[in-house]
Amino acid sequence: MAGPSFSVQAGSVEVEAATFGPDDRDHMAAALVLARRGLGRVWPNPAVGCVLVRDGCVVGRGWTQPGGRPHAETEALRRAGDRARGATAYVTLEPCSHHGRTPPCADALVAAGVARVVAALTDPDPRVAGRGLARLRDAGVRVETGLGATAAAEINAGFLDRVERGRPLVTVKVAATLDGRIATASGESRWITGPVARTHGHRLRADHDAIAVGLGTVLADDPMLDCRLPGLEDRSPVRVVFDSRLRLPPDARLATSAAVRPTWVVCAAAETDDGAVRRRRSVLESQGVRVLPVAADRDGRVEPAAALEALGAAGLTRLLVEGGGHLIGALLAADRVDRLEWFAAPRVLGDDGRPAVAGFGVDRLADCANFARLDAAAAGDDLMMRMIRSRLEST
Amino acid sequence: MAGPSFSVQAGSVEVEAATFGPDDRDHMAAALVLARRGLGRVWPNPAVGCVLVRDGCVVGRGWTQPGGRPHAETEALRRAGDRARGATAYVTLEPCSHHGRTPPCADALVAAGVARVVAALTDPDPRVAGRGLARLRDAGVRVETGLGATAAAEINAGFLDRVERGRPLVTVKVAATLDGRIATASGESRWITGPVARTHGHRLRADHDAIAVGLGTVLADDPMLDCRLPGLEDRSPVRVVFDSRLRLPPDARLATSAAVRPTWVVCAAAETDDGAVRRRRSVLESQGVRVLPVAADRDGRVEPAAALEALGAAGLTRLLVEGGGHLIGALLAADRVDRLEWFAAPRVLGDDGRPAVAGFGVDRLADCANFARLDAAAAGDDLMMRMIRSRLEST
Repeated sequence: MAGPSFSVQAGSVEVEAATFGPDDRDHMAAALVLARRGLGRVWPNPAVGCVLVRDGCVVGRGWTQPGGRPHAETEALRRAGDRARGATAYVTLEPCSHHGRTPPCADALVAAGVARVVAALTDPDPRVAGRGLARLRDAGVRVETGLGATAAAEINAGFLDRVERGRPLVTVKVAATLDGRIATASGESRWITGPVARTHGHRLRADHDAIAVGLGTVLADDPMLDCRLPGLEDRSPVRVVFDSRLRLPPDARLATSAAVRPTWVVCAAAETDDGAVRRRRSVLESQGVRVLPVAADRDGRVEPAAALEALGAAGLTRLLVEGGGHLIGALLAADRVDRLEWFAAPRVLGDDGRPAVAGFGVDRLADCANFARLDAAAAGDDLMMRMIRSRLEST
Repeated sequence: MAGPSFSVQAGSVEVEAATFGPDDRDHMAAALVLARRGLGRVWPNPAVGCVLVRDGCVVGRGWTQPGGRPHAETEALRRAGDRARGATAYVTLEPCSHHGRTPPCADALVAAGVARVVAALTDPDPRVAGRGLARLRDAGVRVETGLGATAAAEINAGFLDRVERGRPLVTVKVAATLDGRIATASGESRWITGPVARTHGHRLRADHDAIAVGLGTVLADDPMLDCRLPGLEDRSPVRVVFDSRLRLPPDARLATSAAVRPTWVVCAAAETDDGAVRRRRSVLESQGVRVLPVAADRDGRVEPAAALEALGAAGLTRLLVEGGGHLIGALLAADRVDRLEWFAAPRVLGDDGRPAVAGFGVDRLADCANFARLDAAAAGDDLMMRMIRSRLEST
């Protein structure tokens, strides 16, 4: 292995990069594409891609399967069969070293006779944390890391957040007028943005583990929060309602469909002793709704940080928040919004319209929630802007 | 002249296009670039460009000079001298046919011996309206029209609006957070957007005849509303205040600087009989402020349509409206916003912040103010979106 040419910080794990060739980069790029396939349906596991290459030919490809198993390496080895002997494995995350429901991938790679492993990232999971790579090295496999680390960290930001910060990655999606309105005063909201933007919205649902809304949105729209893209219906995520006092109506579509598609309700733990709340809880639970009681603030509202911790503990790695304005405001106030997917329609509603984001106590511009633009693109008549949380002050 | 290959509607004036060659297109493109130079400082005249070409060589270039005179053709002929004989003149608007302070350009082109005139647009000014072209044809000059008509109509949209609709083109500029906020609750607004966006804002000032704000903005910010781009300070436009009851403070910078840079105040005519208002008017007028009394609505607020008519009658062709939210809302309600220049900063302020656009009575989404996107681009950390008024419903 050539000397490290750069180092990259992924979460708290330092990874190293060798000087890789163009073939290495191409194969890792392919593995990263495969990794993305798992996003939204492999939680609580990471979405990993693996490409096996021998004598310049790809002999096996794999990615984490729905539900998180089999792992990417297992899939790629299965496809490669005997051709894995002497091959290089490109993996987007360190192969696991612990016995779970399946034997460790590191052992499987060794057993298959893989000669070299190029891993984009080491796995911060304390059960792995370098032990997968060490096990490979001990078995005489040549191991290199760091290639594609930035992209791999981006893909697995949700998994890394859950392991390192105990909460899912939070993406807020807003579809609003130019002046930030999501409905008229009377509540008319269909449709602010056009069909292309709405399709992108469903794509976002497909690659997140869960969609969260506040109770107000449920009461106003009675949404299903599923992915309705043709062919991607099975990618519909868990539905999460922030509902401090468990007022989700049993006849809401999210409740009546809970038996076939998971619906979770995050409520204030302090409220669950109340008799009426207890009765509502048992009705919802009988419908298949999962209730997660968490800490609340002085006003009895679910604390965003506590709610995310509970959702992380329940295994979620990627949470898409679709509103309403109060939930988004609360998450911004708690500094728990990692990414913003903002769709702006070329129209103006004025201050009569309902705001996309409720007031969240910002007095000074310096206290604004600041983001950095990743990209912007047309989405039909609308504009689509992707942003990540920025710690930098804008000038 | 070859047969017309397309026809284009510019305002109410039908123009025809011959089949032109690439050289024709290049020379007209050059004339269009020259025309743009005049924007913002030739009102009440149109911004015109002229290129004289003989035997494939450019022998003269001209554009409307500051204040509206000399005209583009005069300038180009002056530079060409004898070389104009037998040349083709590419002009972005029909040469004038009426004696104003200068003799008609049509006559000057004939006198100089120009053999052919290619005009992008006919001039809807009732004093011209085809007579300029007729005069050329009568003198034996070969005349063709329509080349570059769309671009010429875009450049002179303000002039065409003034002649055809009796009011200036209205461009609204907004610099807001993603959620449409222009200041915190306490009024802090410096700066929502970054330096690149602010520079673009000054460029917009340079190519408009006047900048309008509501009185609230004057009271909050005491702005100068000048163009501070290096080298373009002399492009600073007329400052217009929408101020129904003439409450502009005599010590406001717009008032104290009125003697050196025009400040106009549009007020409610009905209010001007009031003794206190009359006294305020005479103080402001003694400072050099021009007062334009116009019709008001039942609440005593200046009617946007009446105000724009008065500004058009005063000669303005391009008005840039910079706020505040009430003025923009009133213009949208009156359907008097032609273009929108929207700068979105990658930050969120929430509903505590001051809205970019006040409520203007939209109940149903179908009644939204809809725009069509011309383009969008990065402006430093911010995003810049250019839009024009759309009559189409978004789907």
